[in-house]
Amino acid sequence: MVTKPLPKIDLPVSQVRRYLEPGPIVLVSSGAGPTRNIMTLGWHTVMEFTPSLIGCVISGANHSFGLIRQNRECVINLPTAALVDRVVGIGNTTGAEIDKFDHFGLTAQTARRVKAPLIAECHANFECRLADDILVDKYNFFIFEVVKAHVARSPRHPETLHYTGDGVFMVSGRIISRRSKFRPEML
Amino acid sequence: MVTKPLPKIDLPVSQVRRYLEPGPIVLVSSGAGPTRNIMTLGWHTVMEFTPSLIGCVISGANHSFGLIRQNRECVINLPTAALVDRVVGIGNTTGAEIDKFDHFGLTAQTARRVKAPLIAECHANFECRLADDILVDKYNFFIFEVVKAHVARSPRHPETLHYTGDGVFMVSGRIISRRSKFRPEML
Repeated sequence: MVTKPLPKIDLPVSQVRRYLEPGPIVLVSSGAGPTRNIMTLGWHTVMEFTPSLIGCVISGANHSFGLIRQNRECVINLPTAALVDRVVGIGNTTGAEIDKFDHFGLTAQTARRVKAPLIAECHANFECRLADDILVDKYNFFIFEVVKAHVARSPRHPETLHYTGDGVFMVSGRIISRRSKFRPEML
Repeated sequence: MVTKPLPKIDLPVSQVRRYLEPGPIVLVSSGAGPTRNIMTLGWHTVMEFTPSLIGCVISGANHSFGLIRQNRECVINLPTAALVDRVVGIGNTTGAEIDKFDHFGLTAQTARRVKAPLIAECHANFECRLADDILVDKYNFFIFEVVKAHVARSPRHPETLHYTGDGVFMVSGRIISRRSKFRPEML
């Protein structure tokens, strides 16, 4: 499937939960220049609105682990279902052997606040700095602060990929609002 | 919508990622007997297969926070889209004022390994013990070990709810397999 770089607008970093709380598979880009790499990641959670904190489990077996630990930054990119074969390919290859941007035909775009590249074909890009590594040794758990967020203007609800294991993905489906049932302070 | 208690079968605890990695909203039950409570939670991540670890952010503003910290256990229950109005109601009320099982017409079922009750109407129930509270004071982050898992036999892919904030939910959609594209050790 043909995909192309998407123009983006800024998103307040306190609003990244809208994209990450539903639990999509993400592509994490790291390194810089010739050391750049991409990994597929499904184990993440929103941790706070302000500062905008995201917790991610990154196994030490990943080539990206060392790059992220050393550079203390990365970009969390949100792929859509159109990119599923590249998402799978990225998860089943290693940056120790190939340049994944070149190999999978993805465009590395200069970030604003970190050296790691954005993936231009993704629907959203969240530039992150490592905020706390206290649980990295014990659980491979990195706590990142999103310092800059870019999102495509449309569609409002992109088709995202949600991994169930075993090579099987759920694709995001219909949208339902219950806004009228929420207490204002809960929105 | 009418919902009823669902019969369940055992699931190996190392396989709970199948239900939680896609990022659904969950209902967390805690306490026991008259102190029982339920909260709605969207900030969670799988952290390990074996032991089966799940990290959850539970704000100190929740009535459940004290119950879970004191009892060091809870149940993570997986509601389907049929329960959306109860999921919203549970998230917008407090257990300090009402018994949420009674108020929302949910059935408390005895768990096998913890004192906290299962929610019988949910598609799956994961009995959890608090495994590590090192990040509770700083980030409200609880690391649980799933010690027993129960799932409904069908459907294989239940319609789950994924929260985007602002009172809006995404409902899980179509399933696509790329199993043939995975290296065996990545499955």
